[in-house]
Amino acid sequence: MTQNIYDNPEFFAGYSQLGRSVEGLAAAPEWPALQALLPPLHGQRVVDLGCGFGWFCRWVREQGAAKVLGLDVSERMLARARAATTDPAITYERADLEHLQLPEAAFDLAYSSLALHYIEALPALLAQVHRALVPGGALVFSVEHPIYTAPSQPGWTTDAEGRQTWPVDAYLAEGPRRTDWLAKGVIKQHRMIGTYVNLLTGLGFTLVHLEEWGPTTAQIAARPELAVERERPAFLLVSARR
Amino acid sequence: MTQNIYDNPEFFAGYSQLGRSVEGLAAAPEWPALQALLPPLHGQRVVDLGCGFGWFCRWVREQGAAKVLGLDVSERMLARARAATTDPAITYERADLEHLQLPEAAFDLAYSSLALHYIEALPALLAQVHRALVPGGALVFSVEHPIYTAPSQPGWTTDAEGRQTWPVDAYLAEGPRRTDWLAKGVIKQHRMIGTYVNLLTGLGFTLVHLEEWGPTTAQIAARPELAVERERPAFLLVSARR
Repeated sequence: MTQNIYDNPEFFAGYSQLGRSVEGLAAAPEWPALQALLPPLHGQRVVDLGCGFGWFCRWVREQGAAKVLGLDVSERMLARARAATTDPAITYERADLEHLQLPEAAFDLAYSSLALHYIEALPALLAQVHRALVPGGALVFSVEHPIYTAPSQPGWTTDAEGRQTWPVDAYLAEGPRRTDWLAKGVIKQHRMIGTYVNLLTGLGFTLVHLEEWGPTTAQIAARPELAVERERPAFLLVSARR
Repeated sequence: MTQNIYDNPEFFAGYSQLGRSVEGLAAAPEWPALQALLPPLHGQRVVDLGCGFGWFCRWVREQGAAKVLGLDVSERMLARARAATTDPAITYERADLEHLQLPEAAFDLAYSSLALHYIEALPALLAQVHRALVPGGALVFSVEHPIYTAPSQPGWTTDAEGRQTWPVDAYLAEGPRRTDWLAKGVIKQHRMIGTYVNLLTGLGFTLVHLEEWGPTTAQIAARPELAVERERPAFLLVSARR
């Protein structure tokens, strides 16, 4: 099963203090761009892969979704998610996304925010998602961008002229990357953009939109520390149709 | 019109000595991967955008293509291409790809190798290509990879542990990049992968395959100097269907 770093007490304590954990979707700078990829939500049946604290599940219900299933491997996160709502149309279930089984043609939208880069068995998971969507159903997800995950030594370097650059190596060496982020030894799977795309098209998805996310001018004006994120994209946002 | 650096005497002299200019397709290490994206060629009507010396035009005829139109902005390259064949099914025409007009539904395959990253008006060109293809027709092309084109100071850096890294910055700043390659001041257009993909899907193309090219183990065994090309992809290979 996935490493489940979110149930590591040190990681969980750190993660719980991030803006996106405390304030929800609006505190995630990539959220407006991800939101723009969503289909009309009224009456939709939605599954959220890696739902965390359940911010998206609650939001999507506010938009009129009929039924929402939030899945996560972390007991701690699910406990918080469950405590935050009494809405009977939202169900939270513990699930290991490495071995997920979903009912056939049961959802109109599959959504995932920054979770799929933890998954080793991504081809099997995406095959399940394809099967679980109705024809015409949408898959919308974000992952860490491959430029962000590739390096053997990730981090900004300042060159002789004071420019910040991101030292890419090992881009074609797909597989696990071990980094220290909130806790030591967090394991993510580095995959190329081409691999994500070809997994989707190979399963019969039609790719609709692919965005290499960076902050807007307005976001940088409000939070100048985001400016460096335009030097290399941190996130990859994808939408596809079954 | 495009810079037409290929008619610059210094650039042309240098380019003419590259392996891929002297020996043709087999000397281009990305060719096997690009070839694998081509549809069955027998009886097909083919247009090659940026045909250069015409190596692909001649090869595609050997594979049984019915008719081939090779387009290029460089008079010098077209002169060589014309001198290399007497095949009446191959036509070479001078064309500025910035302002190309193609007949409607006239081609089964549009192909382009390492030319589209010179084009500023790429949306207009791809719209022409879409219109020129029959329904179900294929578009297969390669461009320099955005990781390769992005940096304000492209080139390998050796870090403290002797690792070669590629210093990415300005990735989200799309637009012209001026580099010195075979001649001074060669201008290429940096675009993100997402931009290529969204241009295609926005025009109604279906994306079939996207490959971030690096050399195979066998290619590295034969040419060890290629090994570093696995640290960051140099080329992006794309296939799509109208």
